[in-house]
Amino acid sequence: MSENQTEISSLGEFGLIRELTKSVELKNASSLKGVGDDAAVLDYSGKKTLVTTDLLLEGIHFDLTYVPLKHLGYKAAVVNFSDIYAMNGKPEQITVSVGISKRFTIEHIQELYEGIKLACEVYGVDLVGGDTSASVTGLIISITCIGSADESQIVYRNGAKETDLICVSGDLGAAYMGLQLLERERVASAGMKDFQPDFKGKEYILERQLKPEARKDIVQKLAENGILPTAMMDVSDGLSSELMHICSQSKTGCRIYEERIPIDYQTAVMASELNMNLVTAALNGGEDYELLFTIPLSMHEKIQQMEGIRIIGHMTKPDLGCALITRDGAEMELKAQGWNAFKA
Amino acid sequence: MSENQTEISSLGEFGLIRELTKSVELKNASSLKGVGDDAAVLDYSGKKTLVTTDLLLEGIHFDLTYVPLKHLGYKAAVVNFSDIYAMNGKPEQITVSVGISKRFTIEHIQELYEGIKLACEVYGVDLVGGDTSASVTGLIISITCIGSADESQIVYRNGAKETDLICVSGDLGAAYMGLQLLERERVASAGMKDFQPDFKGKEYILERQLKPEARKDIVQKLAENGILPTAMMDVSDGLSSELMHICSQSKTGCRIYEERIPIDYQTAVMASELNMNLVTAALNGGEDYELLFTIPLSMHEKIQQMEGIRIIGHMTKPDLGCALITRDGAEMELKAQGWNAFKA
Repeated sequence: MSENQTEISSLGEFGLIRELTKSVELKNASSLKGVGDDAAVLDYSGKKTLVTTDLLLEGIHFDLTYVPLKHLGYKAAVVNFSDIYAMNGKPEQITVSVGISKRFTIEHIQELYEGIKLACEVYGVDLVGGDTSASVTGLIISITCIGSADESQIVYRNGAKETDLICVSGDLGAAYMGLQLLERERVASAGMKDFQPDFKGKEYILERQLKPEARKDIVQKLAENGILPTAMMDVSDGLSSELMHICSQSKTGCRIYEERIPIDYQTAVMASELNMNLVTAALNGGEDYELLFTIPLSMHEKIQQMEGIRIIGHMTKPDLGCALITRDGAEMELKAQGWNAFKA
Repeated sequence: MSENQTEISSLGEFGLIRELTKSVELKNASSLKGVGDDAAVLDYSGKKTLVTTDLLLEGIHFDLTYVPLKHLGYKAAVVNFSDIYAMNGKPEQITVSVGISKRFTIEHIQELYEGIKLACEVYGVDLVGGDTSASVTGLIISITCIGSADESQIVYRNGAKETDLICVSGDLGAAYMGLQLLERERVASAGMKDFQPDFKGKEYILERQLKPEARKDIVQKLAENGILPTAMMDVSDGLSSELMHICSQSKTGCRIYEERIPIDYQTAVMASELNMNLVTAALNGGEDYELLFTIPLSMHEKIQQMEGIRIIGHMTKPDLGCALITRDGAEMELKAQGWNAFKA
């Protein structure tokens, strides 16, 4: 253990919780009581309550050799906010449970919480509870996010109609290519001392992987422009996988166009350097946390005037299936090759 | 892998979720939308929302050599319900996240969920979401429970007054002695084939450890008798630890009486067999999931007429500290020696 590092056993569970939550202030009117009792108390009268949860495991979802703990905390919170935005809601509270193995000190866990608290501050969310425990090996993070929405404004996955337009915010594949970059530098650094990773000109894809943002801005803009999507999801597993979820739940097919898929030039450069197929990365890469949604055809002009949103295709009758139209006009069936933690 | 066992990789995450949740029906009016979207949708208009969460880790909180998966699922759900009852609320929904290592099959996880679903049925709670993931090692269970309460009925830890009576439901120390019994038989069985553990006459303490219940009945009875506790907690870490939480948050001291602490005879027999101090087991054992609460002195007669509740002492001014009065009249300072996952 290095200097200025404190063993967690010196504080115990209650001491650790006090340490981690001493600067937590509740800001949302819906947060009546936070950390410190058997349960948090929230006020959701007049609104509907949204609940989502994500489990992040070391060695499965993240690798601490290249992910700073503060970034990890930020990301762990943001991916939960993203699920609430994907319902067209507003994230209001989170609970954070962490399992911590012996190799982590209090300072490590404080760093993780710094990231979580920063995300809460940026997105206006209150940290209201959680659980801490020792773990046998590795770091375990389980976050539950509670949000609010007016019932009439909630957007599910099953509301898309056969003639709707398919839209996506931002660009796709960057987080995945950022991961490939980190992986390349990790392999290159193996066994070397004072290795300097080469990230020049690749800052964007790196940030997309390490510190993703949830599209609160898109949800707000859609509301300001009077556009209520008919179906919506956030892109966490990959565009193909999410689109197929919406189609299957809405009982539609879809056509999306390769040339319409938004891709940043850093993503393209990285794919080319690594000899990887760019479209595959954009379709199946995952972790973009962009919003994928459908809108009625009548909203066509309105949506075209909004920055940062691209129409990538349209829904169809269900018997036409789900397909990508390539640049040369060929039809390629979409497959959910998104991220799968249970891969054999 | 034995016969009739299916590798989880054969289903993938979405297949596994479908398999585990296919029989889930929503029964509570507050559950508008469950599994299958980015977030669950709940209706808590007119009531306050309670949220609690617990992380259970293999090798830390449970040992699968003697805990059946179905019991583990039941217990994992019930300990969360217990936290909601401890706020004088009604548990209504849970989300369940599981991390699963390669040695578990689909049948194993189904068994775990059988227990979770049974607990939900018994307590009238809906399973509305969650997350599943592979884990590097061991089984990880993270459950969040959402419940409801009228604002005026919520009982916090900080409401106890200096003259209040201290009450506890059921009996204490049994779950801890059940754990000692299981541990003794595990050690005895080491390396032996066809070992038959000796549980005769110890069924009660075994059940208290393996399949605890939350005291929904006590919460209902208190309401029926018009008794609103001034402070309440569930006994998960141990009576001493919980009582000291209430005293510190309520800014009081307390006196409890050894002869008043409710202990089942099986607990006493087991402690004697193992040469362990019975009072220590009852004070610090934990996992009893009984309700510890304080009531105004004026409720004295009412509470005495209620079955299954014992007055064990009274609150005092804070400067008197927290103490146990032993059978021979000595005063022993209470110490929070309850369960600590971070023990060095």
